[in-house]
Amino acid sequence: MANKKIGKQTVKLQNPPSVIATASIVGPKEGEGPLRLYFDEIIEDENFGEKSWEKAESKLMRETFSKVLKKANKTTDDLDYIVAGDLLNQCLAANFGLRESGVPFLGVYGACSTMAESMSIGSLLIDGEFAKNVVCLTSSHFCSAEKQFRFPLELGTQRPPTAQWTVTGSGGVVLSNEGSGPYITHITTGKIVDMGIKDVNNMGAAMAPAAMDTIVTHFKDTGFTPESYDLIVTGDLGAIGKEICDELIQEKGYNISNIYNDCGLMIFDRERQDAHAGGSGCGCSATVFAGFIYKKLMEGVLNNVLFVATGALLSTTSSQQGESIPSVAHAVSISNTLS
Amino acid sequence: MANKKIGKQTVKLQNPPSVIATASIVGPKEGEGPLRLYFDEIIEDENFGEKSWEKAESKLMRETFSKVLKKANKTTDDLDYIVAGDLLNQCLAANFGLRESGVPFLGVYGACSTMAESMSIGSLLIDGEFAKNVVCLTSSHFCSAEKQFRFPLELGTQRPPTAQWTVTGSGGVVLSNEGSGPYITHITTGKIVDMGIKDVNNMGAAMAPAAMDTIVTHFKDTGFTPESYDLIVTGDLGAIGKEICDELIQEKGYNISNIYNDCGLMIFDRERQDAHAGGSGCGCSATVFAGFIYKKLMEGVLNNVLFVATGALLSTTSSQQGESIPSVAHAVSISNTLS
Repeated sequence: MANKKIGKQTVKLQNPPSVIATASIVGPKEGEGPLRLYFDEIIEDENFGEKSWEKAESKLMRETFSKVLKKANKTTDDLDYIVAGDLLNQCLAANFGLRESGVPFLGVYGACSTMAESMSIGSLLIDGEFAKNVVCLTSSHFCSAEKQFRFPLELGTQRPPTAQWTVTGSGGVVLSNEGSGPYITHITTGKIVDMGIKDVNNMGAAMAPAAMDTIVTHFKDTGFTPESYDLIVTGDLGAIGKEICDELIQEKGYNISNIYNDCGLMIFDRERQDAHAGGSGCGCSATVFAGFIYKKLMEGVLNNVLFVATGALLSTTSSQQGESIPSVAHAVSISNTLS
Repeated sequence: MANKKIGKQTVKLQNPPSVIATASIVGPKEGEGPLRLYFDEIIEDENFGEKSWEKAESKLMRETFSKVLKKANKTTDDLDYIVAGDLLNQCLAANFGLRESGVPFLGVYGACSTMAESMSIGSLLIDGEFAKNVVCLTSSHFCSAEKQFRFPLELGTQRPPTAQWTVTGSGGVVLSNEGSGPYITHITTGKIVDMGIKDVNNMGAAMAPAAMDTIVTHFKDTGFTPESYDLIVTGDLGAIGKEICDELIQEKGYNISNIYNDCGLMIFDRERQDAHAGGSGCGCSATVFAGFIYKKLMEGVLNNVLFVATGALLSTTSSQQGESIPSVAHAVSISNTLS
């Protein structure tokens, strides 16, 4: 067997796929945030012309899919696979938003780790020579998520400061065996980590140990250090989770503080936008990657990025039954150059 | 690029992985059915010693995982990935049942197509030399599914004859790059098909076109014919869906009737067991494959099987909003010999 697997959890890609295009569509609140200039489209209201929030989220996914294909100058005939999923029960947004695509479809569920999970699987499909072009995408929607996971919005329930704000948005990428970068060079697949945290209003804290585990494992598996990257970015730990993750990594002997950020902190201005601990949802890391990070890679402002999307694998049922919150984080290493 | 992809949706594996072990645990009703002698364990009641049906389903998954590892004579250290998912919101059974495994985890959602989807991804990971050993597994539970998708069981709601009975059970396999078969030789990944059927009590009819599409595409992509197989088995179309699928395939110029069966019809005795149109749920095709089909392959009674798990990608929300039922079917070709 070739030496593609390095360490326990990492694959070093032999034929690193390129991210040849990205697309992002976000909601109005995200469109007022610090990254507003980087998104392809900002929708005017959360309904997006649809009769329900779930239909609006499906449409976000459908339109992002269509947009990313166009930007890559590809058609569905060029695609070998779509890898997609979302937060809604039975992955409603992906399954309905992409049902007309006519492309072989692999549905994934990794909660808010979905973008990195789908990019991982997509990259492996290309590196394994099973595919030339793969679309990976995901979405979330503030209203459909609140309705499903928390309280009816009409109640106006007050949220504790540790709570995060689910991003309305969809982000997608086209990965291709042809292209001139940015390249996906390494994939570190996370294991489920559950440290016993039960507070559904503090998911950053629940996910932080999983993020730490994947990042530290990535360093150990690859021999990379924090100096190998100019950005290590977690999915949606928010202010509290990011601080915990940073500290936990420090305890393991790595200092990433200088180059560490979190998509949940990047997408909203917490002072101005009342987003509490920060953004969350599959769409958070997906739109920040597709919108901001990719463009900075293309401009050469960033050259080596470790993208670590983080997922809290709870459901309302599990929490009602007193369960803690299992979490997972998947890491994708993206570089403008091939070593 | 090597010629691994043949046709639009099929991969011909270059280093076909072996199914080196399977395990299955089923509920009491399944344990009274025609395949009762083939399952590894029959639990005494639907609670399986737990306080909720969801916890019972998680335990089914956990115990099946443990059992299949033991049967393969492997430990979690030997595993490169787990690929798993289930029907519960946010894939509760997989995420909680496997949270202690400590193995890189790829969560999938394909409704009742999950077993074939997870075996597809697992096979590609091995064929691509990213993994040596992968566990693929799924589960379903009659009570947790009824509670989530339909009515409280306590209501005793009458079900129409087209309805199916969700199987309580979990099935899992260990795929390995070493072994002497049965080999996974081809993977045909389905696309989402939605023919507009909205009746949630007739999911067999909703899924039949997706099954037809994948099976006919498999024939076209590979050049195989019905004569290439001694069993083509769909996941859980039940009596009505199977008849529709059989006819639709006939319309496309292939006659599979003689070698065609459906896991939903195999697992229950419909005359005796009041299962209406037949079994369903992720656990249906998973336990029938892991229990019955695998053993018949090992005995040489079957030698070439096309395993086509079928999923109805609806949610309660989508149906309440008047949506039809998108469906998907994934096919895995399993053979005792390598051509």
